[in-house]
Amino acid sequence: MDYYALPIANLIEEFSKLPGIGRKTAQRLAFYVLESDTKDAEKLANSIINAKEKVKYCSICCNLTDDDPCYICTDKKRDTSTICVVEGPKDVVAMERTREYHGLYHVLHGAISPIENIGPDDIKIRELLERVKDGQIREVILATNPTVEGEATAMYIAKLLKPFEIKTTRIAHGIPVGGDLDYLDEITLSKAMEGRREI
Amino acid sequence: MDYYALPIANLIEEFSKLPGIGRKTAQRLAFYVLESDTKDAEKLANSIINAKEKVKYCSICCNLTDDDPCYICTDKKRDTSTICVVEGPKDVVAMERTREYHGLYHVLHGAISPIENIGPDDIKIRELLERVKDGQIREVILATNPTVEGEATAMYIAKLLKPFEIKTTRIAHGIPVGGDLDYLDEITLSKAMEGRREI
Repeated sequence: MDYYALPIANLIEEFSKLPGIGRKTAQRLAFYVLESDTKDAEKLANSIINAKEKVKYCSICCNLTDDDPCYICTDKKRDTSTICVVEGPKDVVAMERTREYHGLYHVLHGAISPIENIGPDDIKIRELLERVKDGQIREVILATNPTVEGEATAMYIAKLLKPFEIKTTRIAHGIPVGGDLDYLDEITLSKAMEGRREI
Repeated sequence: MDYYALPIANLIEEFSKLPGIGRKTAQRLAFYVLESDTKDAEKLANSIINAKEKVKYCSICCNLTDDDPCYICTDKKRDTSTICVVEGPKDVVAMERTREYHGLYHVLHGAISPIENIGPDDIKIRELLERVKDGQIREVILATNPTVEGEATAMYIAKLLKPFEIKTTRIAHGIPVGGDLDYLDEITLSKAMEGRREI
């Protein structure tokens, strides 16, 4: 262990708890903060506190928001008969970036994963069912990640939605645009073949 | 630009100001903080504030410390006749890790760089000269980085120290231990040849 003054050691420790930040990067960040303006450091600290205080889950779609309901759920121009189910708030941002989807969202905050001890009750599936029960929804698009956990979650939700007789769809797997067949893994390629369409 | 609730946008903005943190990583860190425990987020914010408040420059060696003078300057077991001059506090940590050096340090907090508009007065050179003037110092080891800026800074300081008739040394350049001659750049290799010693 390297020797640092206690407040520096604490700061490095806290930075290194962040995802993708190792000890070396944490040390670099800590020294950067220490050498920077006090005002800048305070702005960073305050933005953390402020975001934690103000940002909560939307009571309808469970997305992170400072207004409840969130701006998407209250947007009158949105198609309220379609829900796109995603794993996290980042996925909503990614989906919005396409400018192609104009329905509502539902954020699960995770995916079912027996290995990580995350069951169906640990993510926002119950809240989704409540929304579907209201009867206004005509289509649920399952846009969880194409991972083992995401697929399992999609399958699980699809099964729960069966009794409601709602159109339940899964986003397509296939070759990414601009991708190279040569570099693609077999599973994606076989999914792309499976999902082929007539032109 | 993606749409985020204002407190989230602010948090992403603040994270992305840190060195080596791009927008994508900043977004990941922000969502991690938002999804984590309030207590953990507060600990991170407080450690920033706390470090900024408590950590200052040692009045002797200019290293970052919470006690003034720092633990190295006050350590009675240290050889007080030798000063190792480094660019930043990280370099002190690296040097201490060797457990080979038992003298004092002097942290410049930068290197002379005309391109970045950093002159001799912007780094702690004056403070170094004050220490040398006291007359107790017998050797100054210039351990600035082997970059253009580091070399220039070392040369500049060496020139300033000439009148004091103190032994002024520069750390050796050469092949890193475990390195491969084949992969080494020409400049390092020629410096290694230049610095060859009889065995």
